[in-house]
Amino acid sequence: MQPQKIAIIAGNGSLPHTLAHKITHDGGQVFIVAFEGQTAPETVQGVDPIWMRLRATKKIIDALKARDIQDLVMIGALRRPSLKELKPDLKTLEFFSKYALRLTGDDGLLQALKEFLEQEEGFRLHGFHKFMPEMLAPAGILGKAKPTPAEHADISKGLEVLRAIAPFDIGQAVIVQQGFVLGIEGAEGTDELLKRCGALKRAGSGAVLVKYCKTQQDRDLDMPTIGPETVENALDAGICGIAIQAGSTLIADIERVIRIADSHKIFIIGIDGN
Amino acid sequence: MQPQKIAIIAGNGSLPHTLAHKITHDGGQVFIVAFEGQTAPETVQGVDPIWMRLRATKKIIDALKARDIQDLVMIGALRRPSLKELKPDLKTLEFFSKYALRLTGDDGLLQALKEFLEQEEGFRLHGFHKFMPEMLAPAGILGKAKPTPAEHADISKGLEVLRAIAPFDIGQAVIVQQGFVLGIEGAEGTDELLKRCGALKRAGSGAVLVKYCKTQQDRDLDMPTIGPETVENALDAGICGIAIQAGSTLIADIERVIRIADSHKIFIIGIDGN
Repeated sequence: MQPQKIAIIAGNGSLPHTLAHKITHDGGQVFIVAFEGQTAPETVQGVDPIWMRLRATKKIIDALKARDIQDLVMIGALRRPSLKELKPDLKTLEFFSKYALRLTGDDGLLQALKEFLEQEEGFRLHGFHKFMPEMLAPAGILGKAKPTPAEHADISKGLEVLRAIAPFDIGQAVIVQQGFVLGIEGAEGTDELLKRCGALKRAGSGAVLVKYCKTQQDRDLDMPTIGPETVENALDAGICGIAIQAGSTLIADIERVIRIADSHKIFIIGIDGN
Repeated sequence: MQPQKIAIIAGNGSLPHTLAHKITHDGGQVFIVAFEGQTAPETVQGVDPIWMRLRATKKIIDALKARDIQDLVMIGALRRPSLKELKPDLKTLEFFSKYALRLTGDDGLLQALKEFLEQEEGFRLHGFHKFMPEMLAPAGILGKAKPTPAEHADISKGLEVLRAIAPFDIGQAVIVQQGFVLGIEGAEGTDELLKRCGALKRAGSGAVLVKYCKTQQDRDLDMPTIGPETVENALDAGICGIAIQAGSTLIADIERVIRIADSHKIFIIGIDGN
């Protein structure tokens, strides 16, 4: 039984909109908490959004409670606010003063936020994939192109690197070319990683993007995601293929993802988990 | 006994010039192999440089042999040539066809190059620090500022990350703030890492640059280096301190490095090696 009244805490990208559409279509009721400068305008089309400033924690919580909402889905990345944007309200400060010691990484932050929302404020957080499991990456090759043996070796190397850094709550993507690690994702995100590595690519073939979940990552809170834009950015960077974690990566607009990949002969492969 | 006739394969930065000056001052004879668009013009002041296109391997080797030079020092980073610049000569192709399988990283490339130059071509490669050991970073705090306990914890985390990725021949630097890894150096180099992490810095204190040697790195070939520019880039990025490996990091213009660090109250600390 899925909850019938859900608030979507909507980051950027198309997934918040997809989910809102799905829930409405299934007869549920959706509220959107949207963030200025972050949530895509399409997300709030046809719904009554609650526009918020990021970190206006009390206002968000009050708005949700006023609508008698207990169930939340957080989906779409939210850009880390700059110093200038960061004018936290009292509730945010309360949250930070209580959890500050544990906020040592993205996972730490999200876990603490989940605990705060569930244990202190009585909400329930749900993973996006609970509502739309069909959007999880399947195992195996998704389009027409297949990795060469050298590209398979690059994927393996990328997985090894991601496993080595998993304990440190860093990024979840690397780019490997001809056995050489061009770049590791830190706090900058996959798109910035792609941009940077495009300029660093060596002569010759290859360059594979490998995205794989950090070990401690709570998949309800932060699921690796790719979409048409990822594939286009990969193309711009001269990447020849993308390896993602089957069952633990969301693919936004999979038809278009495969169409773009096929027309440029780059492979997309779902790697079986852990 | 140091060789009296030395060719400096001169990358960018001030170190090739410093070394040339030192060898000449000690009564030795110096040749400079300079690369267009890479070697700093100061490097070749007062000497007769051999200007070369990167990867014109045969011409470089012939020029060295014509001058009866057996001893080489490679110092200063050389930017990876772009696809457009990459028009290798036959000797370069010979080198690549023979060693291609091992060229899986910077270390692989440098090791193969060393083997090629020493075993096939009869040269001897020397480390810069053999000539100027006084330029190696000492252990302990170099200027006036000291790391806080939180910054010490960030240094430790940075060292852990660098140890975890050491087997993969990736970068040799990370930036850590408040226990959170902002960025890991890949093929882009420390200056690009600093630029990127400046934009990713969180609110609040901290952000430490940690530079530490990769395990398999041959220090004769590729020694981590910092200089005044590193400190200035770190300042621009909002970094509050720099940790380097004592005895295995070169500091170019240490007086100026310390002067800049002191006047902006950022710390520089040499961490005792492995």
